Amino acid sequence: MNDINQRHRVRMERKKAVIDQKIAAAQKDIGIIIVNTGNGKGKSSSGFGMVVRAMGHGMKVAVIQFIKGAMSTGEEKFLRRFPDEVSFHAMGEGYTWETQDRERDISKAQQAWALAKTYLSDPSIGLVLFDELNIALKYRYLDLDTVIADLLDRPDMQHVVITGRGAPDELIAIADTVTEMAVVKHAFKAGIAAQAGTEW
Amino acid sequence: MNDINQRHRVRMERKKAVIDQKIAAAQKDIGIIIVNTGNGKGKSSSGFGMVVRAMGHGMKVAVIQFIKGAMSTGEEKFLRRFPDEVSFHAMGEGYTWETQDRERDISKAQQAWALAKTYLSDPSIGLVLFDELNIALKYRYLDLDTVIADLLDRPDMQHVVITGRGAPDELIAIADTVTEMAVVKHAFKAGIAAQAGTEW
Repeated sequence: MNDINQRHRVRMERKKAVIDQKIAAAQKDIGIIIVNTGNGKGKSSSGFGMVVRAMGHGMKVAVIQFIKGAMSTGEEKFLRRFPDEVSFHAMGEGYTWETQDRERDISKAQQAWALAKTYLSDPSIGLVLFDELNIALKYRYLDLDTVIADLLDRPDMQHVVITGRGAPDELIAIADTVTEMAVVKHAFKAGIAAQAGTEW
Repeated sequence: MNDINQRHRVRMERKKAVIDQKIAAAQKDIGIIIVNTGNGKGKSSSGFGMVVRAMGHGMKVAVIQFIKGAMSTGEEKFLRRFPDEVSFHAMGEGYTWETQDRERDISKAQQAWALAKTYLSDPSIGLVLFDELNIALKYRYLDLDTVIADLLDRPDMQHVVITGRGAPDELIAIADTVTEMAVVKHAFKAGIAAQAGTEW
């Protein structure tokens, strides 16, 4: 075995020992709250990736889109093929700058949260995705204290994924895993259109 | 209409004008390269979200996992239900610190890239996901120049999603959209196990 391969083996043996120790220490099985925020891509698509991951494990899933809804998306078309496995609700009427009507947006968001609560009370649902909920919170369409209380009151083993820019600090405080998606580069700025399959 | 709602409308009208202008300027329809990197969560799951988004638009998809493979994941179980729509290949044998065998990892990665090239030559494939390719590049299991040349040589309308920590600068340079997933908080550090449906 040559030098580089031998050094690789030694380094990886050490790394494995450290990681195995961390895994042994992480023993709690419990539903977690995952928040995807930041200005970069991948917040919603990561949520949809977790939806199919959960479906692969036989979990029932619910999806509520708080802002999107006016336009049908690839993920919606796809997930509507599995009505017994996923409850899919596009409750918004587009982005807030499209509607320009705050009272209607508030009323839509509150209807969506009333529905969200029914899933947060149902232990048969393994994972819920609240897509763009952060936007509804940022614009104060929903009362943050109520949302947080309802999230904390859910079944022990239920996972929640929340997406959208500008996650409020109070939500980050109660979340288990929080990722900030940061823009390094964006095709849109280079004059490439939002396309089926990549953006919607 | 009260004050806050009126101000909201004015602000959103302005925002809509700016965004509509940007959309009008972004006219190119072309296959793009998307890179998800960084130490945070959501790199692979975002890739899988894009896979189902593309499937929702009727595209054919190919997935090659360069590192994962020893353990069946939720996304694999799920996507194997659609053999006519997705070609799924888990070509790795686990993480590099599990195998500790650099020569075998290199040989596996090179087999995986040979397969990747067949999809990068097939215009009927609308989107390819090369999961954890960045790891294979970082450990120099694959020649970066070859990989970049093959990526650039693909069909015009084909999208490519590449995930993994430590994306090389040369790859970022040729990519259209690059997101850095940054850790804000991670459940694992709080002693919560890697669980079905959220981590695998």
